[in-house]
Amino acid sequence: MRILMIGDVVGRPGRRAVKENMPGLIRELAVDFVVANGENAAGGNGITREVARELWASGIDVLTMGNHVWDNKEIYTFIDQERRILRPANYPGGVPGRGMGVYESRNQLKVAVINLSGRVFLSELDCPFRRADELLSELNGITPLILVDFHGEATSEKMAMGWYLDGRVSAVCGTHTHVQTADERILPGGTAYITDVGMTGPRDSVIGVKKEMVLDKFLTHLPRRFEVAPGPYQFNAVLIDVSEETGQAREVRRIQNYE
Amino acid sequence: MRILMIGDVVGRPGRRAVKENMPGLIRELAVDFVVANGENAAGGNGITREVARELWASGIDVLTMGNHVWDNKEIYTFIDQERRILRPANYPGGVPGRGMGVYESRNQLKVAVINLSGRVFLSELDCPFRRADELLSELNGITPLILVDFHGEATSEKMAMGWYLDGRVSAVCGTHTHVQTADERILPGGTAYITDVGMTGPRDSVIGVKKEMVLDKFLTHLPRRFEVAPGPYQFNAVLIDVSEETGQAREVRRIQNYE
Amino acid sequence: MRILMIGDVVGRPGRRAVKENMPGLIRELAVDFVVANGENAAGGNGITREVARELWASGIDVLTMGNHVWDNKEIYTFIDQERRILRPANYPGGVPGRGMGVYESRNQLKVAVINLSGRVFLSELDCPFRRADELLSELNGITPLILVDFHGEATSEKMAMGWYLDGRVSAVCGTHTHVQTADERILPGGTAYITDVGMTGPRDSVIGVKKEMVLDKFLTHLPRRFEVAPGPYQFNAVLIDVSEETGQAREVRRIQNYE
Amino acid sequence: MRILMIGDVVGRPGRRAVKENMPGLIRELAVDFVVANGENAAGGNGITREVARELWASGIDVLTMGNHVWDNKEIYTFIDQERRILRPANYPGGVPGRGMGVYESRNQLKVAVINLSGRVFLSELDCPFRRADELLSELNGITPLILVDFHGEATSEKMAMGWYLDGRVSAVCGTHTHVQTADERILPGGTAYITDVGMTGPRDSVIGVKKEMVLDKFLTHLPRRFEVAPGPYQFNAVLIDVSEETGQAREVRRIQNYE
Ligand SMILES: [Fe+2]
Ligand SMILES: [Fe+2]
Ligand SMILES: [Fe+2]
Ligand SMILES: [Fe+2]
Ligand SMILES: [Fe+2]
Ligand SMILES: [Fe+2]
Ligand SMILES: [Fe+2]
Ligand SMILES: [Fe+2]
Repeated sequence: MRILMIGDVVGRPGRRAVKENMPGLIRELAVDFVVANGENAAGGNGITREVARELWASGIDVLTMGNHVWDNKEIYTFIDQERRILRPANYPGGVPGRGMGVYESRNQLKVAVINLSGRVFLSELDCPFRRADELLSELNGITPLILVDFHGEATSEKMAMGWYLDGRVSAVCGTHTHVQTADERILPGGTAYITDVGMTGPRDSVIGVKKEMVLDKFLTHLPRRFEVAPGPYQFNAVLIDVSEETGQAREVRRIQNYE
Repeated sequence: MRILMIGDVVGRPGRRAVKENMPGLIRELAVDFVVANGENAAGGNGITREVARELWASGIDVLTMGNHVWDNKEIYTFIDQERRILRPANYPGGVPGRGMGVYESRNQLKVAVINLSGRVFLSELDCPFRRADELLSELNGITPLILVDFHGEATSEKMAMGWYLDGRVSAVCGTHTHVQTADERILPGGTAYITDVGMTGPRDSVIGVKKEMVLDKFLTHLPRRFEVAPGPYQFNAVLIDVSEETGQAREVRRIQNYE
Repeated sequence: MRILMIGDVVGRPGRRAVKENMPGLIRELAVDFVVANGENAAGGNGITREVARELWASGIDVLTMGNHVWDNKEIYTFIDQERRILRPANYPGGVPGRGMGVYESRNQLKVAVINLSGRVFLSELDCPFRRADELLSELNGITPLILVDFHGEATSEKMAMGWYLDGRVSAVCGTHTHVQTADERILPGGTAYITDVGMTGPRDSVIGVKKEMVLDKFLTHLPRRFEVAPGPYQFNAVLIDVSEETGQAREVRRIQNYE
Repeated sequence: MRILMIGDVVGRPGRRAVKENMPGLIRELAVDFVVANGENAAGGNGITREVARELWASGIDVLTMGNHVWDNKEIYTFIDQERRILRPANYPGGVPGRGMGVYESRNQLKVAVINLSGRVFLSELDCPFRRADELLSELNGITPLILVDFHGEATSEKMAMGWYLDGRVSAVCGTHTHVQTADERILPGGTAYITDVGMTGPRDSVIGVKKEMVLDKFLTHLPRRFEVAPGPYQFNAVLIDVSEETGQAREVRRIQNYE
């Protein structure tokens, strides 16, 4: 089966990119299941119910999140009811939402999705490696088709997670840096890996934000409100072909479409 | 003219990759000038005179560095005499070495190389944007062929530098994360840009280090000595085709070779 | 002459502490000049014109700031006109406001105040040590009475600044941690030093904030709006007795008053 | 009963301070139990068996540690055998050593000591608040006399821990910054609290290190070997008077002795 993982969707240009690219991709690539990181989908900061619905309507099955998950306060009103949104599973106990779900794909298979966050240069969450172990033991006997969105900054932590889960999940896809990496590969144990899937959002920007605003911030170190850049989009994703029997990845392919 | 920029060369596997790949690349791609980041060339930590000589002998013209520049203390004995090694130019005044040089290419043209370091998640150096301005004004009238190695962690800071220098230098090549990014492009002003050139070193590793060691560190948070991983290499670089008259980039192409 | 330096004034309880303590202190301690750090004076976040006026009316001569200087956007409308407010002098060029001023004390002497910010665990400003050198050379021949508010997190950076300026300024007073340190002393060169002056604000709090809010943040890592805690205040300051001829400190005394 | 908690003992001057001050303090203050933070006891970096024995021989009952616990590799050879050394209890499972112990005081009472580490600006350990809860439930019914050494950088995290444990332990003593704070108090629930006990080591230094070395590092950002400063010592501690029945603190007093 074929799973599409879409990199951080940023604002209106990102959502437009999803809407315009999904039909063709699903058709041409025979995609059975689609995950997208939606932590920047609502104006660059978090997500709202309406934005989530728009993305689901575009063909996305599950939305994963990251350090921006709580940026838009509206999420507190629906995250506990909505199993198609995941936040990093290594938040401590008592935090709203959930970090793993099992879903049904277009071809009637059970697919598990796990969302985890790195800790290096990010917040002081629980150990993502140990949390992964716990979640995988919960999935034991349920499905071998498992996709992990590991939202992290440091390449070392992300690659370490790839090796840690190699042979135990179908894919470890990094997100968060908003720049697609060119290191996609199938690790020896059969896990598809990429350090970062990239960004689906405005191309002529600094990771989605108007470049003048970011430059002004680096030059002055004054606090600056950031706005999603206008202009043509880029669509960043990876397609993973997975054996339905073993859960092992057979192929991982980077996708970059431009407006 | 064609400039080859090689991503962080890590240890013996990285040097072997350079030695084995350079002759073919220079011949087939008609490369006129070669820069490599050498901050991890000596056993993963810094550089020695012998290692530098080995790399120059392999056809590298200039070695740039980064946060690991001082890891091997031997560098203090030769960095001031050796103009083919650059350390980040935004170290404060009084620090050994230099951050910019003008060199002659194989086709007898003057090529300037600038090495800068980001500050986000790294050390508290001087402003790399302002330092870039100062260095560019020094180069005024000398040569339009200018390559910048911007050694940084955060994708936002690196993309900001790309936009800041767009139209003023031939290329801004990011280094440091040891993972090649897939966002190479020519910015509107004619500057070739890539967020990270990647790593030239052992492939089955965590950014060059034995994966068991890095995993052990993430699982225990005990201090761990890191060793360069053994095994087959990857060679990561970008080739930039630059107009000799204007200094503008005409093409930027990613290169990944494997043992 | 006697200079009073008041630690970060936090919100309404902090301003009440200033108002209630100043008359007695000025009278009993024969204070000639008063500096207060005001970065948290307006509801914990930055300062407004009205709040600044309230503090000046309470007898404060100069307000220094820190990393929270821009929290309340109103400051942009008056910082350039108002020489009795200083922001860290090591912001890069082009940033509103100023980082040093020369003022007249109650006893008709010229007193210089310098505000600097540390960089460790804070933002990537210019080197505070070199900026201090530049400012001191500007003060050459103007006055030997110089107070430095060094706003910083790491004790190492603050003590390093104390030693760096020893014998060149009357006092280096650290601010920012909101906890008064017990290491006040006269360094060998005659500079009064304390790592942190402390906080003038609500006592039963976590550095001025309602303790339940901070605990909730540490337990969940969810973003939390912080509010100034209610309840009785603490007043934290240091009194420095300085030779009017040499600018050298003769005594430094910690002050803690409670409601 | 009276517990003495000594701030980070740094190198030879720190050990000399302990040896010279302990007899008088034990006698004059009628101290029943002594804890010292020993993470910098061996040349500023970690601890050795010989140094630990020297400190125990000086009258210290338990040595707590912090982020420097593993600096001297010798510790791996004895930490598992030696119950009078504690390392932060919120290291993840599988790490050598232990983070809590129950000991007998000079007056034949059971005293529990807990060592925890903060995470802000430090490493990505497990949640210290939840670990504290777990450890306290283990102590249930064993003894109400409980001292916590919370080794942390940020004043907010340390004060939050104080409030979190108020009424549940006898004392929360912060360590790590090497500067004694002047905020010692008995919290409303009966827990003695201080943000930092300070440093027992060379006085004319930057947190124990030769000041020229630290300044050189701040001015150049070159890696620098740090050496313990020579010269006269300071002895920093707090004395806590605890009700033997309730475990509640009746008094907390700062101690500063100088050579
Ligand atoms: Fe994102
Ligand atoms: Fe993110
Ligand atoms: Fe590197
Ligand atoms: Fe690096
Ligand atoms: Fe403050
Ligand atoms: Fe501050
Ligand atoms: Fe220490
Ligand atoms: Fe420490």
